[in-house]
Amino acid sequence: MQLPYYIDLLGTLVFATSGALAASDKNMYRDIFGVTFTGFVTAVGGGTLRDMILGTRPAWVADGNYLIAITIGVLFAIFFKYYILKYRRTFFLFDTLGIALYTVVGVQKSLEYGVSPLAAIIMGMFSAVMGGVIRDTLINEIPLIFKKEIYATACLSGAAVFVLLKLLEIDDNINSFISVFIIILIRTIAVKYKLTLPKIGSR
Amino acid sequence: MQLPYYIDLLGTLVFATSGALAASDKNMYRDIFGVTFTGFVTAVGGGTLRDMILGTRPAWVADGNYLIAITIGVLFAIFFKYYILKYRRTFFLFDTLGIALYTVVGVQKSLEYGVSPLAAIIMGMFSAVMGGVIRDTLINEIPLIFKKEIYATACLSGAAVFVLLKLLEIDDNINSFISVFIIILIRTIAVKYKLTLPKIGSR
Amino acid sequence: MQLPYYIDLLGTLVFATSGALAASDKNMYRDIFGVTFTGFVTAVGGGTLRDMILGTRPAWVADGNYLIAITIGVLFAIFFKYYILKYRRTFFLFDTLGIALYTVVGVQKSLEYGVSPLAAIIMGMFSAVMGGVIRDTLINEIPLIFKKEIYATACLSGAAVFVLLKLLEIDDNINSFISVFIIILIRTIAVKYKLTLPKIGSR
Repeated sequence: MQLPYYIDLLGTLVFATSGALAASDKNMYRDIFGVTFTGFVTAVGGGTLRDMILGTRPAWVADGNYLIAITIGVLFAIFFKYYILKYRRTFFLFDTLGIALYTVVGVQKSLEYGVSPLAAIIMGMFSAVMGGVIRDTLINEIPLIFKKEIYATACLSGAAVFVLLKLLEIDDNINSFISVFIIILIRTIAVKYKLTLPKIGSR
Repeated sequence: MQLPYYIDLLGTLVFATSGALAASDKNMYRDIFGVTFTGFVTAVGGGTLRDMILGTRPAWVADGNYLIAITIGVLFAIFFKYYILKYRRTFFLFDTLGIALYTVVGVQKSLEYGVSPLAAIIMGMFSAVMGGVIRDTLINEIPLIFKKEIYATACLSGAAVFVLLKLLEIDDNINSFISVFIIILIRTIAVKYKLTLPKIGSR
Repeated sequence: MQLPYYIDLLGTLVFATSGALAASDKNMYRDIFGVTFTGFVTAVGGGTLRDMILGTRPAWVADGNYLIAITIGVLFAIFFKYYILKYRRTFFLFDTLGIALYTVVGVQKSLEYGVSPLAAIIMGMFSAVMGGVIRDTLINEIPLIFKKEIYATACLSGAAVFVLLKLLEIDDNINSFISVFIIILIRTIAVKYKLTLPKIGSR
């Protein structure tokens, strides 16, 4: 099927943009290599980790289109930085769509490779958020997923729904649509109403 | 054999508890996701890295019991935090038992997969300590293994003993028992007498 | 062929030295384990990541000689620290030779494993610089590749030249020689004339 492939490429592009922006935003020396490298790692990090655990080769290694998508995403961040920051809301939609799509692609691929349902939920979330985690670790910051309102948790919820509907033998396309929708919904509501998860260990 | 399997699950639980405690201890925002995620990474990080290098799939991916053990370990950390910190000595025993078991399981698995004896010693140590290293990197701290009195070194010593006795064709069960005992012994003595390794590069 | 093997071992030794020096240089507690561990990670990190992505087992796992090379490299750093820092220029040459060789070995291996030309360029650079990136992340610093004048970029350029000449069916040995030379040339010129890449996102 062609559609998911192009959606995957679009997700890669969006993540590359968000990664490059994060690097160029840090108030320190960032040259064109640092920005590109950070965009690249953000875009492919999560999927690469998932594929290394699954024991299969990441898509970007064999298919040059992913690298082209990343290049476009990084150039986009460099040339339209102020425009993107101005239309922050549009960018938020893109990022949210990105994590939703990555999660569902990730959980689906994991199930195909015979991963247990519980582990597949985690692998789906990993696909979506670990690129950002690696990016934040490289630029020496506490990973955003530990600070953001309900972010990875939205991915986990959507992944859980996908696994559940899969067990109920719902058609994969319908299932993908519902799961993606749920992730976007939870994430949007969390941001709109500033919902957070219960805190632990506060003093 | 069933016994090592349950011991492995127990080790996973203990490491999840210690990881979750480390996160909830950091004087900053930590929600229930951050604590769980950190517990998970601490518990499976070392073994996952070992298995990715060996080219085999980590146990938690196929066997849901590991994820259940981690969930219990994290809940334990959340609900019994003050109890655990009070009975610190008991927890220390658990953690020491955990690294000892993980080391021996790791070196044994590596040898089975045809790793050279010298590399197997390192892989055994990796299994035991890299989960903690990844955890500390994520919460933006210098990894504990660089600061703790003789910790990874105890694992290396025990792993070396295991490889040596294996070459001498000692029975695996007896060998495991001796190697685990040596790691616990070295670690306990190091903590009790505050032994440290020679420092380098002091000014 | 025997020559590349010994060159690879020499590269490993040099990187172990530079990693151990970086650890012992940090103005904080560094014992003999921390220094050795950091040297080890610097030396094998990049190649291990490359091999995990390619789905093959890293050389150091099967061949004990790599670990011996690392041990020698670390001991060298410990005993000849002041000597090395005095003859900094010699060490710079070694490090530059190291990244050049690692890059070409990495891109060559990636192409052999059926990686796309574009991705092989990245994999070559990864082989050379990711060990240092992991090292810097562990000792909680911004990775040097983000701060150093044209470092990873020199590797990317040399890797691109290798791929190009390979497509033009130039003999591998001649190609390796030219590509290594180009990396050394770019890096040396960049340091000598303090060339940097254009900055992005400055305020």
